Amino acid sequence: MYILVLNCGSSSVKFQICKMPNYEVLVRGSIGKIGYPDAKFKFEIKNNEPIRKTLAIEDHEDAINHILNTLKSKEAFLGFSLADIQAIGHRIVQGGQKHNVSTIITKEVIDYIESIKDLAPLHNPHHLSGIYTCEKLLPHAAQIAAFDNGFHMSLPRHAYLYGLPLELAEKHKIRRYGFHGIAFRSMIKQAAPFLSESYEKYRIMNMMLGSGTTANAVLYGKSIDVSTGFTPHEGLIQSTRAGDMDAAALLYLMKKENLSINEADTLINKKSGWLGLSGLSNDMEEIYEASQKGSQRAADTIETVCHRFRKYIGAYAAEMKGLDVLLFSGGVGENAWYIREKVCNGLEYMGINLDNQKNKTLTGEGIISCAASPVKVIVVSANEEMIIAEDTYELIFKNPNKN
Amino acid sequence: MYILVLNCGSSSVKFQICKMPNYEVLVRGSIGKIGYPDAKFKFEIKNNEPIRKTLAIEDHEDAINHILNTLKSKEAFLGFSLADIQAIGHRIVQGGQKHNVSTIITKEVIDYIESIKDLAPLHNPHHLSGIYTCEKLLPHAAQIAAFDNGFHMSLPRHAYLYGLPLELAEKHKIRRYGFHGIAFRSMIKQAAPFLSESYEKYRIMNMMLGSGTTANAVLYGKSIDVSTGFTPHEGLIQSTRAGDMDAAALLYLMKKENLSINEADTLINKKSGWLGLSGLSNDMEEIYEASQKGSQRAADTIETVCHRFRKYIGAYAAEMKGLDVLLFSGGVGENAWYIREKVCNGLEYMGINLDNQKNKTLTGEGIISCAASPVKVIVVSANEEMIIAEDTYELIFKNPNKN
Repeated sequence: MYILVLNCGSSSVKFQICKMPNYEVLVRGSIGKIGYPDAKFKFEIKNNEPIRKTLAIEDHEDAINHILNTLKSKEAFLGFSLADIQAIGHRIVQGGQKHNVSTIITKEVIDYIESIKDLAPLHNPHHLSGIYTCEKLLPHAAQIAAFDNGFHMSLPRHAYLYGLPLELAEKHKIRRYGFHGIAFRSMIKQAAPFLSESYEKYRIMNMMLGSGTTANAVLYGKSIDVSTGFTPHEGLIQSTRAGDMDAAALLYLMKKENLSINEADTLINKKSGWLGLSGLSNDMEEIYEASQKGSQRAADTIETVCHRFRKYIGAYAAEMKGLDVLLFSGGVGENAWYIREKVCNGLEYMGINLDNQKNKTLTGEGIISCAASPVKVIVVSANEEMIIAEDTYELIFKNPNKN
Repeated sequence: MYILVLNCGSSSVKFQICKMPNYEVLVRGSIGKIGYPDAKFKFEIKNNEPIRKTLAIEDHEDAINHILNTLKSKEAFLGFSLADIQAIGHRIVQGGQKHNVSTIITKEVIDYIESIKDLAPLHNPHHLSGIYTCEKLLPHAAQIAAFDNGFHMSLPRHAYLYGLPLELAEKHKIRRYGFHGIAFRSMIKQAAPFLSESYEKYRIMNMMLGSGTTANAVLYGKSIDVSTGFTPHEGLIQSTRAGDMDAAALLYLMKKENLSINEADTLINKKSGWLGLSGLSNDMEEIYEASQKGSQRAADTIETVCHRFRKYIGAYAAEMKGLDVLLFSGGVGENAWYIREKVCNGLEYMGINLDNQKNKTLTGEGIISCAASPVKVIVVSANEEMIIAEDTYELIFKNPNKN
């Protein structure tokens, strides 16, 4: 029961080979800078030193081919062969409005993903390329699609509609989709050991604070709101994304700077956020260090970013009529105690009582609220690959009649 | 001590003549559809039937001229003459970052308003036209400018910065300005009779729900956040404005529909909001009636609009570490009990306990929360003209040495 988990990004492929049902990761790795002569290949067999190579990788097919050839060359050492990989789980960013759960990839599913390519032009074409390549190179294996926005298909209509003319929005499928759904499912799952009851008993606020940064409200098991929107741009201030802003301000900037639509898109997605505000880095740790050394601009960046985090916690608490659990995850959510402290202190009125000492000294996962805090604040480590592997296992092995 | 209050909008002029210090409105009126052959003139002397006329009005100067001529022709009846108007108070939408209080209009102030015309292209040029016309036609009168965003100049930096590259934002003066500041000042003032202490003792949430719709957080007397942003578009879903949306979704729409920047601006400012969502009307009362008659689309519009109202109450409560007073004003805020009910019910966790009966039966101003509610919910009637008249009186008559 070997599963390949594949995440084909815009210029990268990440992968894991894991053994199910216990999610034992045997091999993991990635290829970055696809399309460049100096693409970065990383290949790590469990309990072994990672192999790192710089080489030319033309496209996603070339990348997957390279990964599979490397696996093939290590078959004897690994103790399993490519033929033993029974299923492939793909992370698919945009599943449109149709798919709220992971699904076995059929011709119909491929056609559907093709049909909504426009909605995620930086992602879905590469996901499809991954699917086609696996069909060719591992024809014996079943494939499943885990949709990153599937978890948010439970959003009520009033939460996913924008204030745009409805006909126009429907014509172009413009609505809040939200992303990071697989990560949010993982966060809730990771929180289980720290909670006395099932997650379906709680009003949960998920703060996924990493290079992609998303807030999510989960009311009694269902996602009811999410800060990312039609695209991953909306919402919190992210590492290079501006997040919430007056759309009319962007139009003003386009006029003043004579920006094309694509240039405007690049501006708000690649040059803004922590990077644009700090003028320094898209890495929060570096910004924090600069602020500690006296940079007012770095300090302002942190204040501005945390201000937005707090607004979302307040807004989602209002939507859920209060809060029971607040989860932090992601590179910043898991490591930046100063961010968690800044965000939580002052929210006592809604029952959040951070244990500042615990928060500062925590390593790994754990509860960082006071014992008597009405809202439990927990740091968890999201593992999207595990969720995809589990979904794949469920679909292919536990319900083989569905195949 | 007669004061002319003048509000020169994009295609209208509204005016009042009032006697100070007691703010006795002697004459009020307006000219709408300026620039058309069928402009609408309304002129109402206190305790008299209003005069209504349809006539050709070329521009703002023509409009003001017409108002003053009409006043002149009624001088005997009114008991005061144009020469008795000692000061003119202008509502100025955009005062940039410089003016946080009303100010006497000097050459320098005019130059400054000219210099930031770009930031409010639909408003400031007409305000200037009003100032120039009054200089010409009422040369003996002092003029003062009341800036609609002045109240929000107290926003902390983290609340007014967008996640855009800082240099670019500073170059083009892009930040959250916020509007409706004069109305918010009025709301707080109107609330005084219902509060036991000065407004500076409270954490106040202002909900100005009218054709322009803005939320505002006032912490111990100072505006610390506001939902309108660089332009009045941002924030709540307004009668024809989309409000908060993924800026990248607008770029997508521009590409798909081949929209110019101006067309996109018109789409989100004039064709969206309650009108675009309902496909029916920009009047909430009409939308409510349709929903009562079974229109699902009208019902969805109300749900979506209220959802955003609640998010802002939650977000601003988080910013103020809780809430003491929630004020509703504006056409919808003062009259639509069903909106207030939908917005407040469910927010008990933050101390809002609406008295549903009181809320439903209130006419005029009054408290609509339960006696024991930790947060006082109050309906007030904002009067921007009164604030402008008072500012004018303060500047010209009470502190003549400032002139």
